[in-house]
Amino acid sequence: MQSSQGGAQRRHLYEQVADHIARLIEQGTFRPGDRIPSVRQLSRQQQVSVSTVLQAYFLLEDRGLIEARPQSGYFVRTRLATALPEPDISSPEPDPTRVSVRELVMMVLHDTLNPNLIQLGAAVPNPELLPTDRLNRILASLARRSGDQGNLYDIPPGCEALRVQIARRAVASGCSLAPADLVTTAGCIEAVDLCLRATCRPGDTVAIESPIYFGILQSMEALGLRALEIPTHPRDGISLEALGFAIEHTPVRACLVISNFNNPLGSCIPDEHKKELVGLLARHDIPLIESDILGEIYFSEQRPSVAKAYDRKGLVMLCSSFSKDMAPGYRVGWVAPGRFKASVEWLKYTSNVATAILPQLAVAQFLDSGGYDHHLRRIRRAYARNVALMSQAVMRFFPAGTRVTRPGGGFVLWVQLPDSVDSLELYKLALKSGVTLTPGHIFSATQQYRNFIRLNAAYWSDAAEGAMQRLGELILELAHQG
Amino acid sequence: MQSSQGGAQRRHLYEQVADHIARLIEQGTFRPGDRIPSVRQLSRQQQVSVSTVLQAYFLLEDRGLIEARPQSGYFVRTRLATALPEPDISSPEPDPTRVSVRELVMMVLHDTLNPNLIQLGAAVPNPELLPTDRLNRILASLARRSGDQGNLYDIPPGCEALRVQIARRAVASGCSLAPADLVTTAGCIEAVDLCLRATCRPGDTVAIESPIYFGILQSMEALGLRALEIPTHPRDGISLEALGFAIEHTPVRACLVISNFNNPLGSCIPDEHKKELVGLLARHDIPLIESDILGEIYFSEQRPSVAKAYDRKGLVMLCSSFSKDMAPGYRVGWVAPGRFKASVEWLKYTSNVATAILPQLAVAQFLDSGGYDHHLRRIRRAYARNVALMSQAVMRFFPAGTRVTRPGGGFVLWVQLPDSVDSLELYKLALKSGVTLTPGHIFSATQQYRNFIRLNAAYWSDAAEGAMQRLGELILELAHQG
Repeated sequence: MQSSQGGAQRRHLYEQVADHIARLIEQGTFRPGDRIPSVRQLSRQQQVSVSTVLQAYFLLEDRGLIEARPQSGYFVRTRLATALPEPDISSPEPDPTRVSVRELVMMVLHDTLNPNLIQLGAAVPNPELLPTDRLNRILASLARRSGDQGNLYDIPPGCEALRVQIARRAVASGCSLAPADLVTTAGCIEAVDLCLRATCRPGDTVAIESPIYFGILQSMEALGLRALEIPTHPRDGISLEALGFAIEHTPVRACLVISNFNNPLGSCIPDEHKKELVGLLARHDIPLIESDILGEIYFSEQRPSVAKAYDRKGLVMLCSSFSKDMAPGYRVGWVAPGRFKASVEWLKYTSNVATAILPQLAVAQFLDSGGYDHHLRRIRRAYARNVALMSQAVMRFFPAGTRVTRPGGGFVLWVQLPDSVDSLELYKLALKSGVTLTPGHIFSATQQYRNFIRLNAAYWSDAAEGAMQRLGELILELAHQG
Repeated sequence: MQSSQGGAQRRHLYEQVADHIARLIEQGTFRPGDRIPSVRQLSRQQQVSVSTVLQAYFLLEDRGLIEARPQSGYFVRTRLATALPEPDISSPEPDPTRVSVRELVMMVLHDTLNPNLIQLGAAVPNPELLPTDRLNRILASLARRSGDQGNLYDIPPGCEALRVQIARRAVASGCSLAPADLVTTAGCIEAVDLCLRATCRPGDTVAIESPIYFGILQSMEALGLRALEIPTHPRDGISLEALGFAIEHTPVRACLVISNFNNPLGSCIPDEHKKELVGLLARHDIPLIESDILGEIYFSEQRPSVAKAYDRKGLVMLCSSFSKDMAPGYRVGWVAPGRFKASVEWLKYTSNVATAILPQLAVAQFLDSGGYDHHLRRIRRAYARNVALMSQAVMRFFPAGTRVTRPGGGFVLWVQLPDSVDSLELYKLALKSGVTLTPGHIFSATQQYRNFIRLNAAYWSDAAEGAMQRLGELILELAHQG
């Protein structure tokens, strides 16, 4: 590329420079999170003026490909504006359906135990992005010091030291909670399960986002509940219009959303919509069960609020845990059950009496030490980067017609494959190639997401990249057969 | 007492000596587990011949009051043949009943958190009789060494190292179990709850021992199950005749017993009856949910078997935990669910995904180290002694008309008060005096054991003895009012 003179030509030139860099990013020469050449370097390399490069970089910033970091230079954005379209808003079955995806789920679950497979299936966090050593050291120290206090039935509402810490952190998500508003649980699914039991009887209908994490569908199946799947936007979450319509026409006993970074969609209900959602349900006196399990793993500048922040009637039951960002093996979660607190406490007692006390105390101490925020800053950057790298791999390796979500947090991608591809077929072929993924079927009570897959980006690595290439080839084969 | 000569008189004399010692035991001068004066000492003290004392001691042994220990002398037996009669076999409501004792249970439960009360209520083990320091040290060491392995989702069937240890120990209770036959849980109630869910649907009827641990009734209430309460003998457990009759006349979906040392009765189904019970249910294809949570805390020479030992059709679901003898705060239990294993695994997954891994590994290592058996020998003696001491206190302080069980294991007593005494009234008065107990009402779905109380002997102490005296006074007051 030669430097040249003249207004019109110079304008053309900086666009050429920008296109050149964009291609390098698309091809993976520069990857999300990488620093691209400095203005001076590129100016020298490409023999163009510094101002041309600057203009090119402004253009790339504008297109959402790169970002400037003060004192550091220019970097490929971790939230790439991908070239692939997002999936459309979902259009699930309009009637309540008994949930029944049990066998498939248990099969997929057992594959996650196989260490010989490249795990793109289960949405488990990357062990390297957990503060396990630090937490285990705290647990060890507590175990040595706690004496009898570490071996008591910690009956509901559960560990006070932990409830104090959770109440303090709730301020950041817009909530004003007292320790007495909380009940500790063995993870988030237990919290959700207790909320479903506190509000519904077998046969009742629950309005849910669709697609939604299959574990929640499993809990509903086990409790004999019906799922009313509400169209859900891949970025904005549950459709309030569709929910409003459904409530008018079907007796809905409760509503359930993953408000921040729905698994598998990555959608985040905008704060204004959260307020509307709470208002809509309050007018009908319908409880809202809200999972915020991924709420701390956001990629933007600010933590999204929770729907609970807008709760005025005690109808919102906010559920979360430390399983995705800190300690899957510790089984520590919690719920702020609003007006259903007495029922939730009682159901927790009837289910398993209490949660193990020492793991709760260890999590409480880690939170109190301030180590959590530092840790979160680190993993947010890492997961944003891994999600961006996996998005790129989808773009590079998967055939035309593929769509992919642009999650604002968490660590999974929801990929829509060409219509003719059955993701269960893909799942079986991928297993033979040593790769797991999660077939879309199990994210709906009606098994409708047959040409969708969920991919876990948490473990991004060269092996994962190779696995993505193989998946792309398999998808192409299936698409041609179909 | 003067020594005297002549056959008839000498016979009379040793009876007098025996009565004298028996009185000292009854008055508490010598307590269960205490050594009584040696033959020589007493001979000197009472100025009777050595052979008279020997005959007196043989008589006292015969009456079940004392026992000889080789090289150690004579001791007051810990399993006192009490002077009070046992309660009769229960005669519960013959119809299935929806369980509904929720509010009362939660009230009683919250009292157990009050450190200012003398706790004769909750059936919690004595912290001094738990191997907490040892177990916490193991946990600390594991936490330091385990790395990522200590922070994984331990999905069902759960921790293999623990399942291996449990399978090994099962031999002692007559079972042949493989690690693959087991699922780990967060305590015994979780195991029972999963079994109820695996076998029953809401509205179904479960045949149960009566009285039975209120936590089980609470699980049944939460699951919408009906309890068919079967007459239960205070020593031999569930009446097979009554159960057989019930099965013929009512559709029973499952049967549930605490086979060894029913809480609150202390009953232990004789091994022959266990076999019959399993056969009876197998003929009707009815699953048996068996809790053996107290099975290791037996007072006799040999561990009682479990009903599971006689299971030929995979219909017996054996549940237990380490909460009563080792680690209430660790929340580690297990189930051998027979042919219902896949359902139990799935339900565990839908309820809370997994049990915390490090506490399970710590329990497994404690079992593997062999420390458990030594520990059990120690606590069996201690609990036998505490139960005997509390029985004596009932005998001394409670009014005429009182009956009390003679448990063969565990650490609770079931006390039948004079008919006119309402144990809920007693509970309220006792609370004001700083003492908790468990009112009989909550051990039945029909709240029928109104003049019964359960007392926890685990913490026997001078304070507990004082509390028993106060209880005796309150009971007398209520009996006179009634």
